[in-house]
Amino acid sequence: MSKEKKEGSAQIKAEIKTMREHLMSLQQTIRENKLPIIVLVEGWAAAGKGSLINELISELDPRFYNVTSPVITPEAESRYPFLYPYAKAIPENGKIMFYDSGWMEDCVRKYLHREITREEYKKRIRAVNEFERQLRDGGYLLLKLFVDIDEKEQRKRIRGLRENYETAWRVSAEDLWQQREYGEFKDCYESFMEKTGKLIPWHVLDGDKKNLAARDALRLLTEQVDEALLQGRYCGKPFDKEFPLLKMPKLASVDLSPSLSDEEYKEQLKKLQKRLGELHNVVYRKKIPVILCYEGWDAAGKGGNIRRIARPLDPRGFDVMPIASPEPHELARQYLWRFWTRLPRSGHVCIFDRTWYGRVMVERLEGFCSEDDWKRAFNEINEFERQLTDWGAVVLKFWIHIDQDTQLARFNDRQNTPEKQWKLTEEDWRNREKWPQYEEAIDEMLKKTSTENAPWFIIESNDKKYARIKTLKIVIEALEKACEDRL
Amino acid sequence: MSKEKKEGSAQIKAEIKTMREHLMSLQQTIRENKLPIIVLVEGWAAAGKGSLINELISELDPRFYNVTSPVITPEAESRYPFLYPYAKAIPENGKIMFYDSGWMEDCVRKYLHREITREEYKKRIRAVNEFERQLRDGGYLLLKLFVDIDEKEQRKRIRGLRENYETAWRVSAEDLWQQREYGEFKDCYESFMEKTGKLIPWHVLDGDKKNLAARDALRLLTEQVDEALLQGRYCGKPFDKEFPLLKMPKLASVDLSPSLSDEEYKEQLKKLQKRLGELHNVVYRKKIPVILCYEGWDAAGKGGNIRRIARPLDPRGFDVMPIASPEPHELARQYLWRFWTRLPRSGHVCIFDRTWYGRVMVERLEGFCSEDDWKRAFNEINEFERQLTDWGAVVLKFWIHIDQDTQLARFNDRQNTPEKQWKLTEEDWRNREKWPQYEEAIDEMLKKTSTENAPWFIIESNDKKYARIKTLKIVIEALEKACEDRL
Repeated sequence: MSKEKKEGSAQIKAEIKTMREHLMSLQQTIRENKLPIIVLVEGWAAAGKGSLINELISELDPRFYNVTSPVITPEAESRYPFLYPYAKAIPENGKIMFYDSGWMEDCVRKYLHREITREEYKKRIRAVNEFERQLRDGGYLLLKLFVDIDEKEQRKRIRGLRENYETAWRVSAEDLWQQREYGEFKDCYESFMEKTGKLIPWHVLDGDKKNLAARDALRLLTEQVDEALLQGRYCGKPFDKEFPLLKMPKLASVDLSPSLSDEEYKEQLKKLQKRLGELHNVVYRKKIPVILCYEGWDAAGKGGNIRRIARPLDPRGFDVMPIASPEPHELARQYLWRFWTRLPRSGHVCIFDRTWYGRVMVERLEGFCSEDDWKRAFNEINEFERQLTDWGAVVLKFWIHIDQDTQLARFNDRQNTPEKQWKLTEEDWRNREKWPQYEEAIDEMLKKTSTENAPWFIIESNDKKYARIKTLKIVIEALEKACEDRL
Repeated sequence: MSKEKKEGSAQIKAEIKTMREHLMSLQQTIRENKLPIIVLVEGWAAAGKGSLINELISELDPRFYNVTSPVITPEAESRYPFLYPYAKAIPENGKIMFYDSGWMEDCVRKYLHREITREEYKKRIRAVNEFERQLRDGGYLLLKLFVDIDEKEQRKRIRGLRENYETAWRVSAEDLWQQREYGEFKDCYESFMEKTGKLIPWHVLDGDKKNLAARDALRLLTEQVDEALLQGRYCGKPFDKEFPLLKMPKLASVDLSPSLSDEEYKEQLKKLQKRLGELHNVVYRKKIPVILCYEGWDAAGKGGNIRRIARPLDPRGFDVMPIASPEPHELARQYLWRFWTRLPRSGHVCIFDRTWYGRVMVERLEGFCSEDDWKRAFNEINEFERQLTDWGAVVLKFWIHIDQDTQLARFNDRQNTPEKQWKLTEEDWRNREKWPQYEEAIDEMLKKTSTENAPWFIIESNDKKYARIKTLKIVIEALEKACEDRL
């Protein structure tokens, strides 16, 4: 090595040291400012992603970061949306998560292996852009790195690894395949970065120069952290986006008079439940994920309605998820995280008893989130639900609707019936006083989030029997259609 | 059907209806009394376990129960202790979890398939007894049912299922194998029930008489719930159990003078970290789970010690788990649940920064659990750790030790150094005042839980350099031994 080169290298090492120390000194401030950080490290096989991460973390307190390398599951074996493992792994406030390859590798590899079609690949790129924006808007700092080496260098490194008994196991058949198809991968990586680099840019690091790459990564990370701490926690602005919306009536205009006689109810209930039970079998075998969302006024009859749907289902194939207020570890992450982690496996039915729509109802009205937060949520939710239906899920949303008089009558009944008193809380009475504000919020929610792929249904529930039968029919119709559509 | 039989059947149906209604009316009381309930439904393939569960839940509110059918993974693919999926699925307070087959089927099948040896099978039976007792002692109501049918009936049912296109897929190769080996299964089921039925009895139901089985199951469940509600939440008594304990010195007698010069430290650190890095590779390839537990006085130097261990490890193969006070969903379950769910996959290293020993230190001294709870915990923890080492884990526990003067000096240093102030809290000062009580509790803990399989090491940390080198050496020695022992 020439003298000049040596000096250059010594200088880089000194820079690395300084920046590492700086990053270390920032840890506590990151924690206090509750800044969550994601460092996505993508790149070629054998490019040195692992050792780059090692350079970044070497002075960090291991309690403040984690490294995850979500396993890329063969498409046929995956029972969750493709973003699921990445969404599940996002860090909580004040912590850093390093992804040792992530959603880019996942998309590119599956596409090049022809495990997903071109159409699916495009949808995934859209979902990636949505996912990244949602994280940024939720206050996450997201740094995206790509470690680059050229074909010759990769061949040399893979050969080196394979020649040594101690390291040969590190080279997978996948890696060899990438080496053979280097050109195709290169095109695909480049186009992926172009298509996903507009909002949150990619930074390409030269994997051939290990120290330079480490210095550049450290510089990017420390600069971005400094800036994020200076600016304060980011909160994304609401944005306009076109979704294929269904026209929904205002709640005030809904005719709540429909009812059923006991005989009609019993007869239909039996018939419909039988049919739903049969369909559940098909759904299970065809591995269709089913997500049923229940929202509604207090005492509207959500519980009884859910029970009539659940009754004929095979208990091994469904779950009811009651959604209460978020727990501390949930509040410490992007707000959709607690729903990502509750998604059903494909072929299973998940009934959400209250949902992510809390964001635009109770959280909005009680001030549990900022105005920008709930205004942004309409689109974020539409994106999330489209990701679910793109995965293949049937998503149906029910607003269980009653009028104020009926609610009062049911509240009084609960108050006067000892076995039912537990169902009525002070909060119910308080919510009731805010009926007009809630109605306005719900009308806006129904208007902005009833999409073709994940529609809302207003269920008239002054007569609970009518409501149950109507819900059953909607579920059956949607499942029949889904079962026909899938092979 | 004769008139007599018909009357009998009508009566059974009436009884089922009454008991179902009773169970339904108990739901709210179960919730208010925070009673967690586990119903384990084991039995022959095609005996009707699923439909029995259906009978039990038919009137229940789906928000109050769940059904889980933990998949039995082939031994070679499992990366967790065998009880892991069952421990993970235990219900929270006030809810019912139905296991559609569970640990019994898992043990019996793997044993008969020769996936585990006779010795391993025996250990699993012991672990099952421990697991069930711990749940009971932690306030869980555990009902164990076995649905029985004879060989002829099973053959008939399996044939029936296979002849029908709609149901043929329900019969697995495993089920056919069981049918062929009915006799062997029968012996094994019976001996399993005998060996695990002493503390919490098994109830055998006649799967041939569906209604009778449903009635008997409902009767057992409602009777036991009634009794549990009447008696109030159960809290197990401490018990004596022999574990192969290592003799530990009292903390007061530990010589804290050992130290290392900077040169010795640097030289050894480098050498030992290199060796640990190499071993981590072997551990990963041999799929040995490694669990390192850190406890110690405030300001003893846990963090810096952990960092020196973590530094040479491949970040994809280890995790640091900081353990803070339990969150609400963790408090709502047996206290070891939050550690079960944090176990590493085999081949990974998990460093616990504080551990399940909180039970016999802070929870004991601050009154966060009852006296019986923490007294029982010594044995419960020994059992838990033996289950981990039986699984193949290396479990090492470090008490990072300093004296009171050193602690005071470090507290003062933290208080006077702006970058370190965050490390010092009011609580640290309060804990310091309770030093004598803590010392007594820790001496008892070290005495009662330093087992041959999961030993404690007192790490003299008045000199942090000495402490780090000593810890590294212990970890290396243990991993070298483990790597030699495994194929």
